[in-house]
Amino acid sequence: MEVFSFSAGTLKLLDQRKLPFKEEYLLCKNYKQTIGAIREMAVRGAPAISIAGAYALSQAEKAGYIIDSAAEEILNSRPTAIDLKNAIDFMKEGINNGEDSQKRAAEWEQSIYNKCKLICMHGAELIGEGNRVLTHCNTGPIAVGKYGTALGAILYAHKKGKGVFAWVDETRPRFQGALTSYELSEAGVPHNVITDSTAGSLMRKGEVDLIMVGADRICKNGDFANKIGTYPLAVLAKHHRIPFYVLAPSSTIDSKLESGEKIPIERRDEREILEPAGVRAFAEGTRAANFAFDVTPASLVTAYVTEHGLSCSPPE
Amino acid sequence: MEVFSFSAGTLKLLDQRKLPFKEEYLLCKNYKQTIGAIREMAVRGAPAISIAGAYALSQAEKAGYIIDSAAEEILNSRPTAIDLKNAIDFMKEGINNGEDSQKRAAEWEQSIYNKCKLICMHGAELIGEGNRVLTHCNTGPIAVGKYGTALGAILYAHKKGKGVFAWVDETRPRFQGALTSYELSEAGVPHNVITDSTAGSLMRKGEVDLIMVGADRICKNGDFANKIGTYPLAVLAKHHRIPFYVLAPSSTIDSKLESGEKIPIERRDEREILEPAGVRAFAEGTRAANFAFDVTPASLVTAYVTEHGLSCSPPE
Repeated sequence: MEVFSFSAGTLKLLDQRKLPFKEEYLLCKNYKQTIGAIREMAVRGAPAISIAGAYALSQAEKAGYIIDSAAEEILNSRPTAIDLKNAIDFMKEGINNGEDSQKRAAEWEQSIYNKCKLICMHGAELIGEGNRVLTHCNTGPIAVGKYGTALGAILYAHKKGKGVFAWVDETRPRFQGALTSYELSEAGVPHNVITDSTAGSLMRKGEVDLIMVGADRICKNGDFANKIGTYPLAVLAKHHRIPFYVLAPSSTIDSKLESGEKIPIERRDEREILEPAGVRAFAEGTRAANFAFDVTPASLVTAYVTEHGLSCSPPE
Repeated sequence: MEVFSFSAGTLKLLDQRKLPFKEEYLLCKNYKQTIGAIREMAVRGAPAISIAGAYALSQAEKAGYIIDSAAEEILNSRPTAIDLKNAIDFMKEGINNGEDSQKRAAEWEQSIYNKCKLICMHGAELIGEGNRVLTHCNTGPIAVGKYGTALGAILYAHKKGKGVFAWVDETRPRFQGALTSYELSEAGVPHNVITDSTAGSLMRKGEVDLIMVGADRICKNGDFANKIGTYPLAVLAKHHRIPFYVLAPSSTIDSKLESGEKIPIERRDEREILEPAGVRAFAEGTRAANFAFDVTPASLVTAYVTEHGLSCSPPE
């Protein structure tokens, strides 16, 4: 199952909104369509978004759009993950140096895969024989294009025969746990889906050995943004003295932002909450507050795993 | 909107499964039908279940069934809440003393309302001017029959003109937050629904002044069971030094159980998780672990509110 392919100016994307039920592809023939795919979450996962964004800028460049304003439009598609910004910076640098933009995007894509492959290997080292790993949202191959980050490490540990078991947060409001469960099933990893608020009592009962999550932006001081629901897991892990690991490529680092307070938190349509799985569950007129991400302070992180390996201090 | 009425041997119940969309009533003509209504959660909320259970035993008695085995069947309908057991004990005592079972059930019902009315008044005292109160699951009039407990206190504070705002956990997997939102809307209380895992970051941002929840069973040492997702709220409240209150009538006290480890936790059908709002969100073959309740240790409780008022030690 290929997440990305690019040919003749068209980005072909695995449409994640159709998963786990259908493997359908979306053709983004120009940069505006690629932006739409990011915004509507046909492609999601910070590293995957960065790859789509890189190709989007190449599409814009080839079509003769003004680079800076196209870049701005792409960046506005989703505000929280920094990988997209880092990809755009990488693209602009190449274009300014006269490099072919399509080659440059492919280079970015490949660099993400190289990093994430290493993350899976480093991360799997943290998983012991028979460990029960809890994870949130979806950070597998789908969220990167290949390999994955947190979920990638779990898959790699399984492949190494470690007999791992996964607790999968359903991850409201968009149920990305369904993608995680799908990827675990494909790989034959035993797992159970739970509601997000079940994680706490499993920790209390001693049924969670470690927690692994991805990230959308890691600040200079190590504070990081990730899918809403990550922060409570970190507090609960601290309370129960359970290791809490953050796995992300260095493209997720915001080398300019001092700390987490300034990370822009995307607020999405309240219907994602009020209409779970597309069906209205709340009375008309009900209002919901739908923050897509939360911020976890560095003090709650046991260690970060990047392509450079394990680090207890903020990664660089 | 009347939750219960009983006449000519039939218990007429507001069908909570149809809310917030339709106010429909279910007629339970015999004790087996009443048991079905409890099990299928047409009636839910620990105090409300106890009222339905009391009438069920009266139905069984009037129809000539053996009291002890009918009582056993009723108790097996839902295992976690102790109010049902306390109601059944109250009923049996009356029947043994030759009292009319229907009058005895009505007496139980009225005693629950009297207690909860006091709880609302005591609880509202804890809510300051303009406070933002976070609550979980549904503990309003619907969950009791009248008045409510935690949500009842919020409604009463609103009535007293305190300008309260409520954060409403959606409460996966069954979205009882939709009932809470419905009751708040009817009363004109401003509120926002959030996913359960959003509560933590709201606390971190200083947007929650206090937390009020109900209970399904309070042990002798003060440990208590409540809807899954209550325990993580208590840990988060402690972490952020936010008051965490448990509001329940004395019928929720299990005077025999020393501590929370022995509370039986109901495990419900995994489809409640896998098919949110009745629509499949996970691939076929996915397994989910659906624990309906969790246990919160007394050490995380700021105070208990019963009909006797506020108490920092376990209520009796």
